[in-house]
Amino acid sequence: MQVKAVLLDLSGVVYQGGAIIPGASEAINALRLAKVPIRFVTNTTRSSKEQILVELSKMGIEIGEEEIFTPVGAAVDYLGRANLSPYLLVHPAISEEFSACPKGSDRAVVVGDAGNGFCYQALNGAFRVLAEGAPLLALAKNRSFRDADGGLSLDAGAFVAALEYATGQHAVVLGKPSAEFFEAALSSVGCVMTDAVMVGDDADADVSGALSVGVGAALLVRTGKYRDGDEILYEHSPTSVVADLTEAVAWILDRV
Amino acid sequence: MQVKAVLLDLSGVVYQGGAIIPGASEAINALRLAKVPIRFVTNTTRSSKEQILVELSKMGIEIGEEEIFTPVGAAVDYLGRANLSPYLLVHPAISEEFSACPKGSDRAVVVGDAGNGFCYQALNGAFRVLAEGAPLLALAKNRSFRDADGGLSLDAGAFVAALEYATGQHAVVLGKPSAEFFEAALSSVGCVMTDAVMVGDDADADVSGALSVGVGAALLVRTGKYRDGDEILYEHSPTSVVADLTEAVAWILDRV
Repeated sequence: MQVKAVLLDLSGVVYQGGAIIPGASEAINALRLAKVPIRFVTNTTRSSKEQILVELSKMGIEIGEEEIFTPVGAAVDYLGRANLSPYLLVHPAISEEFSACPKGSDRAVVVGDAGNGFCYQALNGAFRVLAEGAPLLALAKNRSFRDADGGLSLDAGAFVAALEYATGQHAVVLGKPSAEFFEAALSSVGCVMTDAVMVGDDADADVSGALSVGVGAALLVRTGKYRDGDEILYEHSPTSVVADLTEAVAWILDRV
Repeated sequence: MQVKAVLLDLSGVVYQGGAIIPGASEAINALRLAKVPIRFVTNTTRSSKEQILVELSKMGIEIGEEEIFTPVGAAVDYLGRANLSPYLLVHPAISEEFSACPKGSDRAVVVGDAGNGFCYQALNGAFRVLAEGAPLLALAKNRSFRDADGGLSLDAGAFVAALEYATGQHAVVLGKPSAEFFEAALSSVGCVMTDAVMVGDDADADVSGALSVGVGAALLVRTGKYRDGDEILYEHSPTSVVADLTEAVAWILDRV
């Protein structure tokens, strides 16, 4: 394949627990020098897009707002189109991004990584709204992420699965690996799915998920939440398993 | 079939939100008069067995401790046999029942209906213990229950499903509809599964689940959490759908 654009996951690929992963900045610069369009696609929903940009800037990585895609924008679009008022089970850092959403009586439950906001009362409130027939929108369905203390922690997906089980309904997933999410990021650089490479540390959403919706190639990095054997757990195996973003970019630059 | 023993669910069948369901006491007395052995099998894990007996007594229903089966006893047995120390995600009302369990370094995560105890930190703690290879024991996997305020509320099953999804492991379910649980209750009255009738308001665990492990008949009552159409949602349909325990006992007394 000839690579026309690169989709980069952030947490576990570019940074980890507030610190840049060694070599990531240089790897991104190498892609920029080669004039390969990059889009950052993250399922992280504990920070707003603005906070992510500030964090990256502190690490010496300058990216434009138009280069980063989070599931929040997709959710806001969905709610607006369907004229649904959100019942939010999300982190306080992103709740303001929903302030312009419809406020009518038809509701949708929106689940992101609410962190400590996942308490029984909030989850039960969401369950009751769903039981009245509201749809369930998942910003992401990731199982876990590598937390600041170095351990794996529960991500939004576990709580989405809880509500799916209790209600018998399936969530609409708005972040990775939704085809619409990858397509939105790629269409902004005029690239079709088959000409793009996704780089991530999540063998499910970043790799198997991307390949299953038609992304041309997907590289699994061994940084972040990667654990031995992750590459054989899901339907589609990675195009290649690489040490880190540096090795991923070398793979890409051989194919531009 | 000729009915030799009756298994009765409690919440939603005998009582509801702290009050007895009209006719339940008389129906139980009718079974006692006809000398049909009864065992009360409940997946409720927000109260200890002792508390349940006290509550029933206040409602005018006197049952012996040997007549009631909760998943806690099954869990304590399991932990003892496997020499596993419990990581408890259960309601404070029942935590003391685990005080004599093994205390070694090999652990198992035990999930009951912890109610407000289901917070992110406790769930994430359980997730991390599971990620180290501990087995997941579910006292129950019920989706919801009819709460004291009249609405449906999330039951333990949602949180079991969350941990199953995040870890990729399947829980060992110790309460209904585990075959061992029904068998333990029935063997205490010398009855085989095929000669027993289960009466419950949960079309899944009480009805489809009981039939799938060989209980002779299962009656679904329209009290408690029952909602129109529940009887067609799961693999096995109820032997009969009845208005309440009064009607269930009439069905049973025709067959003793």
